[in-house]
Amino acid sequence: MSEEVKVGIVGASGYTGAELMRLLWGHPGALVGVFTANKYAGKSVGSLYPSLGPYYEGSYTEYDPAALEGCDIVFLGLPHGKSMKVAPELLEMGLKVIDMSADFRLGGMEEYELWYGISHECPELLTEAAYGLPEIYRTEIAGARLVANPGCYPTATLLGLFPAARGGLINGTVVVDAKSGVSGAGRGLTLQTHFPQVADGMAPYAVSGHRHLPEVRGGLAGLAQDPEPKVVFTPHLAPMNRGILCTIYVPLADDAEPSEVRGVYESAYAGEEFVHLLEEGCYPDTKSVQGGNDCHVALEFPGSDMLIVMTVIDNLVKGASGQAVQNMNILCGLPEGTGLAGPAVFP
Amino acid sequence: MSEEVKVGIVGASGYTGAELMRLLWGHPGALVGVFTANKYAGKSVGSLYPSLGPYYEGSYTEYDPAALEGCDIVFLGLPHGKSMKVAPELLEMGLKVIDMSADFRLGGMEEYELWYGISHECPELLTEAAYGLPEIYRTEIAGARLVANPGCYPTATLLGLFPAARGGLINGTVVVDAKSGVSGAGRGLTLQTHFPQVADGMAPYAVSGHRHLPEVRGGLAGLAQDPEPKVVFTPHLAPMNRGILCTIYVPLADDAEPSEVRGVYESAYAGEEFVHLLEEGCYPDTKSVQGGNDCHVALEFPGSDMLIVMTVIDNLVKGASGQAVQNMNILCGLPEGTGLAGPAVFP
Amino acid sequence: MSEEVKVGIVGASGYTGAELMRLLWGHPGALVGVFTANKYAGKSVGSLYPSLGPYYEGSYTEYDPAALEGCDIVFLGLPHGKSMKVAPELLEMGLKVIDMSADFRLGGMEEYELWYGISHECPELLTEAAYGLPEIYRTEIAGARLVANPGCYPTATLLGLFPAARGGLINGTVVVDAKSGVSGAGRGLTLQTHFPQVADGMAPYAVSGHRHLPEVRGGLAGLAQDPEPKVVFTPHLAPMNRGILCTIYVPLADDAEPSEVRGVYESAYAGEEFVHLLEEGCYPDTKSVQGGNDCHVALEFPGSDMLIVMTVIDNLVKGASGQAVQNMNILCGLPEGTGLAGPAVFP
Amino acid sequence: MSEEVKVGIVGASGYTGAELMRLLWGHPGALVGVFTANKYAGKSVGSLYPSLGPYYEGSYTEYDPAALEGCDIVFLGLPHGKSMKVAPELLEMGLKVIDMSADFRLGGMEEYELWYGISHECPELLTEAAYGLPEIYRTEIAGARLVANPGCYPTATLLGLFPAARGGLINGTVVVDAKSGVSGAGRGLTLQTHFPQVADGMAPYAVSGHRHLPEVRGGLAGLAQDPEPKVVFTPHLAPMNRGILCTIYVPLADDAEPSEVRGVYESAYAGEEFVHLLEEGCYPDTKSVQGGNDCHVALEFPGSDMLIVMTVIDNLVKGASGQAVQNMNILCGLPEGTGLAGPAVFP
Repeated sequence: MSEEVKVGIVGASGYTGAELMRLLWGHPGALVGVFTANKYAGKSVGSLYPSLGPYYEGSYTEYDPAALEGCDIVFLGLPHGKSMKVAPELLEMGLKVIDMSADFRLGGMEEYELWYGISHECPELLTEAAYGLPEIYRTEIAGARLVANPGCYPTATLLGLFPAARGGLINGTVVVDAKSGVSGAGRGLTLQTHFPQVADGMAPYAVSGHRHLPEVRGGLAGLAQDPEPKVVFTPHLAPMNRGILCTIYVPLADDAEPSEVRGVYESAYAGEEFVHLLEEGCYPDTKSVQGGNDCHVALEFPGSDMLIVMTVIDNLVKGASGQAVQNMNILCGLPEGTGLAGPAVFP
Repeated sequence: MSEEVKVGIVGASGYTGAELMRLLWGHPGALVGVFTANKYAGKSVGSLYPSLGPYYEGSYTEYDPAALEGCDIVFLGLPHGKSMKVAPELLEMGLKVIDMSADFRLGGMEEYELWYGISHECPELLTEAAYGLPEIYRTEIAGARLVANPGCYPTATLLGLFPAARGGLINGTVVVDAKSGVSGAGRGLTLQTHFPQVADGMAPYAVSGHRHLPEVRGGLAGLAQDPEPKVVFTPHLAPMNRGILCTIYVPLADDAEPSEVRGVYESAYAGEEFVHLLEEGCYPDTKSVQGGNDCHVALEFPGSDMLIVMTVIDNLVKGASGQAVQNMNILCGLPEGTGLAGPAVFP
Repeated sequence: MSEEVKVGIVGASGYTGAELMRLLWGHPGALVGVFTANKYAGKSVGSLYPSLGPYYEGSYTEYDPAALEGCDIVFLGLPHGKSMKVAPELLEMGLKVIDMSADFRLGGMEEYELWYGISHECPELLTEAAYGLPEIYRTEIAGARLVANPGCYPTATLLGLFPAARGGLINGTVVVDAKSGVSGAGRGLTLQTHFPQVADGMAPYAVSGHRHLPEVRGGLAGLAQDPEPKVVFTPHLAPMNRGILCTIYVPLADDAEPSEVRGVYESAYAGEEFVHLLEEGCYPDTKSVQGGNDCHVALEFPGSDMLIVMTVIDNLVKGASGQAVQNMNILCGLPEGTGLAGPAVFP
Repeated sequence: MSEEVKVGIVGASGYTGAELMRLLWGHPGALVGVFTANKYAGKSVGSLYPSLGPYYEGSYTEYDPAALEGCDIVFLGLPHGKSMKVAPELLEMGLKVIDMSADFRLGGMEEYELWYGISHECPELLTEAAYGLPEIYRTEIAGARLVANPGCYPTATLLGLFPAARGGLINGTVVVDAKSGVSGAGRGLTLQTHFPQVADGMAPYAVSGHRHLPEVRGGLAGLAQDPEPKVVFTPHLAPMNRGILCTIYVPLADDAEPSEVRGVYESAYAGEEFVHLLEEGCYPDTKSVQGGNDCHVALEFPGSDMLIVMTVIDNLVKGASGQAVQNMNILCGLPEGTGLAGPAVFP
């Protein structure tokens, strides 16, 4: 294809960077030309990721804006706080930028500084950036220069809540009980992700306040036209590599009938390539979306005016790099599912 | 010890039976004299459980009441519906019986028949049986002939809720989001517990109604003096051998202050040998109770008048066989923790 | 593509059938038109494999040769002993057949009957079938009507041994210590594959004689021109979904220098798209080939005239369905890696 | 018990230290009075190990020989290279010392310096120390002041080989293919033990030379009265918390009959409390020894004058802290199995 999208990845050595490289290798309309990793500059891709070795012959390079000149689009796989140092100069060069960190996700500077503990250096970009959840903000993304790729938990949560929120069905405090695989914590070493501490066990964490909470709340605020939506969010670490399962408890508006609620969801998801509402009585499984960009959703009505929404995604695909590619497709005018569609790896 | 308790186990070949044999081997005041398993009669214990092989030389026998004559106490490790066929004759022989099935757990016959789909054959024993959750019903257990050992989920849930329920702190629908290890499903083969279907993944199940829900609801009804407590209970299967983690969302009565709620919990657990309230900011981990009879509990207050109670137990120990031994100790006048106290196996 | 290969899958409900459907969905030159599963006829694909649900709308059908008339090629995902009942009639219809069972793998009828305990019903096909290990038998496969797709263990073993065997480097008993993920045992329920029996543990099995041993020995006999190669083969079950790791201990001919042996391997693998020799000091990891068709190989020389060959594959891809697609590509004159190339899913 | 053994643990914050504390809590004749951990001095035990929290109220202290004065015995849970700095002064104080590092395991200084890369500071203690594998060196241990507790791999290997070695049955290069759980690598953070790098996968490591190889070779040299026994040792990391499985390939002396070999093993293990030879056709499983001090052994004769010995232990119990307690019992004149006997935790 003569019009192949030329891609740069800044911060390519983490799990989301590696996942981008995996997905883009199979993308028929994109080519990864640059992949930087200051810490591993000069090291071959295969030495960090043997799975990528046979498919990427080069080595990681040090970040250098000049090297990105020929690119059409740049993904940032940097840690929080680093993206905002790099994004402005790349945008000035005329590049489109998809940032996978949290730097441009939150609507306001104050909130960013509260949750991330550092000053935001380009508040105007914070306002400008499109929030890259295509199922909700497709139009905004299409016209953006800068896309803030959502967090994994907010993706799984908002995909499960947006039909109810838009439909005005939520009446009270929403409880999001989320279970994540360990790759969601990244490649950095911590005691919490040391195999013997986590394998064959389960635990909650960050119960007093996780950084994805304001992102979820912000998303809901826009959807439900409620400036102060009440959300309780409890993340758990599950002994698995990939996957997020959100079990979401939604107090329903009084007169909402199950069949009506189900109808609202069916309409909301109609035409969505990656979001699938399961049949009644079926519940989603993280294994069934592993390695794929799909999101499976199920609904249950246990009585007590409650709706339970269950959603699963692969945190590294639909929860990170797959969604980033989906955003790239939108930005570049390609069919949204290009290079992404296909069954997950099961079992 | 001349006064050693003589124990029979009827239905000893399942995981709870094997766990009983493990725990009772190390019990200084009890001796397992009979272990039946009709399906495996004549087979050595070691052929089913190599871990027990060096410690139990005999073979499983077929169930025969006469062989249990010399026993002081009999544990029933039978499937639901079988215990009620056996319990009456054992009680008539003057034996004390601890039933680990669901046959005597629910307060009423109608409810039993609704959830288990079979008629109850001895409704009078259903009424007589003590519910074997020592932290709540210690006195009733001490005077009983027949103890209904609680289900694993109800144990983890009620241990986390009884202080709040007794204290009148609950104001609304309680959401119990429970995550269980796979051994909770027993030794029987199912697709759901086939390794490739469950390993490295997570899924909810029985969301439309799990048999432990009425047990939880019944327990709460008594504690909160509310005949119709509202409870939503969602079990999940986690890719781990042992352990239950319950994350419980409790809407608080309006004027309940966090410090006050914490005080209620501290008082309720004071003096309990196996229930431990973790310090603020610490959250429980199923790994830290694996193989032990401990229950760890943490509290968190995320705002929105909500209390989050997190509890962990080992489903086979405090959630089944360990609790059964605790009940045996009470029935036999032994110190309650005999043969049970000691650190879990971590990692 | 007007020349799209039309594919039928007979016995599509097992793990290898599902994996074929996953791989062929993404294959640009093939279309799965028929998928049979007598046990699940009428059931939707999504009800067995939610991962495939959004990609295959139809239902499994009952086996009926007439329905396969329009196909170019048929894969058999049937159990051992069933394929030989079906293959003759399909071949007579002029279809090409790739059998994923063991029915046509062994060279001789006596050996088949010895290891599988049943009479072989079409010994002439046993002789005719090409052994579908493309790296060794590419030419034979290209001209065949019937391909016997190799077992997972023999694939991992023979890919690691063929350079040494052909090069006359083996001098004594080869020890193959193999570790397999649990999906290799299939979707059928057994105690050995029940999650609590296998998770978080390891064990050898079938040490006294596994059915893949004669397949390995037969393969080696041809390669090494030694009618009675000495092989000891010990399979182990590892607590993982996918992957085979073979650690192979090869007594070297006296005068074989490490650099020379490495050279033999480099030459043998040169030009192979899916077999990759790792750099010195690097060892292969099953995770790095998960979901992909790659085989990673490493060599080590611990002294004592010994060569250690370490190989990893994904048992469901290169060890089964991926290799079957590779064979299909050869049979149909497509580039061998069509629909197969691409990085594995890591982590 | 007035004669309770008073125990100090120096370096108590690692996994082997924590395991010692777990085992000794249940030991009827020993009491842990001091537990040091310089890095965590002042921190409560429960803050590092919630499983131990309810059973040990105190905090870790800084190492101070004076504080160990009242002890009878001191365990060293220090890293390699640190024990030799501490052992001399403790021995001078008249304490008995059981070192769980490698500092006193190897027979000679040169070998220590070769494999550990540092000079040995007390070569005379290297010579004096008893090698703490009770099944082989019971008498030497009983008379020692200083015991070098064996490595986990050498324990599993030598328990499987000593009958054959002593019986003169080994004729050629022994291949030890070892699979270990991740806790064997300790509590320190490494990429190799980061959950997403290792979970659901398998890989060999240190194939070119592991530090346990000279320990195995040294042990064999003594047993087989062969100064240069040929051993190939390949460790693998398995995705499990605990457990070592060694599959050992032993070329048999020509005239060794299977029944004779089995007889040699039966005699060698007769009377051993913790080493159990499984029946013919049964193979050992790491899960069946998890949390216990047992070692299960199986033999198989695949032809080709080969014996396969399969052994399993829990690397933290019989492979480390349990064996250390066994050595303590011997040193203190207690029955060898005190506080150690009992079934493993299965499943």
